[in-house]
Amino acid sequence: MKIAILGGTGKEGAGLATRWALGGHSIIIGSRDAERAKTKAAELRERTGKIPIIGHSNAEAAELGEVVVIALPANGLANTLPECAPGCRGKVVVSTVVSLTFGGGRLFTPPATGSSAEEAQALLPEARVVAAFHHIAAHELADGEHPIDCDLLVCGADPLAKETVAVLALSMGLRLVDVGPLSNAACLEGITAVLATINRRYKLKNSGIKITGL
Amino acid sequence: MKIAILGGTGKEGAGLATRWALGGHSIIIGSRDAERAKTKAAELRERTGKIPIIGHSNAEAAELGEVVVIALPANGLANTLPECAPGCRGKVVVSTVVSLTFGGGRLFTPPATGSSAEEAQALLPEARVVAAFHHIAAHELADGEHPIDCDLLVCGADPLAKETVAVLALSMGLRLVDVGPLSNAACLEGITAVLATINRRYKLKNSGIKITGL
Repeated sequence: MKIAILGGTGKEGAGLATRWALGGHSIIIGSRDAERAKTKAAELRERTGKIPIIGHSNAEAAELGEVVVIALPANGLANTLPECAPGCRGKVVVSTVVSLTFGGGRLFTPPATGSSAEEAQALLPEARVVAAFHHIAAHELADGEHPIDCDLLVCGADPLAKETVAVLALSMGLRLVDVGPLSNAACLEGITAVLATINRRYKLKNSGIKITGL
Repeated sequence: MKIAILGGTGKEGAGLATRWALGGHSIIIGSRDAERAKTKAAELRERTGKIPIIGHSNAEAAELGEVVVIALPANGLANTLPECAPGCRGKVVVSTVVSLTFGGGRLFTPPATGSSAEEAQALLPEARVVAAFHHIAAHELADGEHPIDCDLLVCGADPLAKETVAVLALSMGLRLVDVGPLSNAACLEGITAVLATINRRYKLKNSGIKITGL
């Protein structure tokens, strides 16, 4: 599958790119700055030994991807997504975005739309937005091939989009758990705050979550 | 420990009472209706074979408990907690409350205070409120003695309160995971919506959550 990763130069985006490239997918790294995207793509080609990793501006990446993954900072959606909307039309778009504020106060505050995923859906009205991949630590993704001890929780309205996410999950060896409609996205995003707090408190880098009884 | 359970006649409250009674604690079931509390207490004495389970009004239960557990419906806090405030003064108060709305629309919407636990803290300003026990299915609790495959996530400001929760967790054989300050409570409460959705979707009664990498 051709996977565009908006904000793919960040840690989480680059980590996802690494895993998916190693899983046999073609990757388009997107960035505000096309040159930075190309540099990161070259670095990931080097690291993974996989050729089909290229870099483009976010809007071009969205055009080129069959599926589009949003790995942008939460406060960057309103600026970046409108220019990506034509490229995302009709496509499966996966929001991994979580609005965390470090440094005291409340760690997780969802945006006024209810969640970052719903904000993405509002900014990309013709895309099939699902929320997923919030809980897989960048640290876990980065080193490539060891098994990740975490479930892949997904929510969204579109069954086809969830099937696409199932393929993306499978290429990382993750079990997909369907968590219903996109209105549950804030609950998934909030779990990232739980894991970030646990990482800090227990001096970990890679806590994750598994659903039991399933 | 003497544990008062406000709203202890409900499924979750009665399930917690069952487990803690079997773990050797004394239980005071609280209810708006003291007679209903006494009837439920008699039923639980019968079911568990444990004598120290009594029933009282919520306010009396709060007075009698060394620790107070809130198992009220989310929309009942504003009505019920003010009369319990004198009894809760200085005590560890554990909020298990989650504001779920079934039947379409958004399943989980935290109250304006940020979370039900923070609402409880606002209504009980002299209590040491922590949030915990949101994820242990009533169905799992009810049958008494089999192991529960779920972690016990807790958040709150007071280290002493967390130690008390650790004791309560241990009496059910649960591992406690410290999830930082009370401002993370909405994230824990939201996980209940995730589990409720999974239960419905996969036709389960007892999905739970485990933290990996810990």
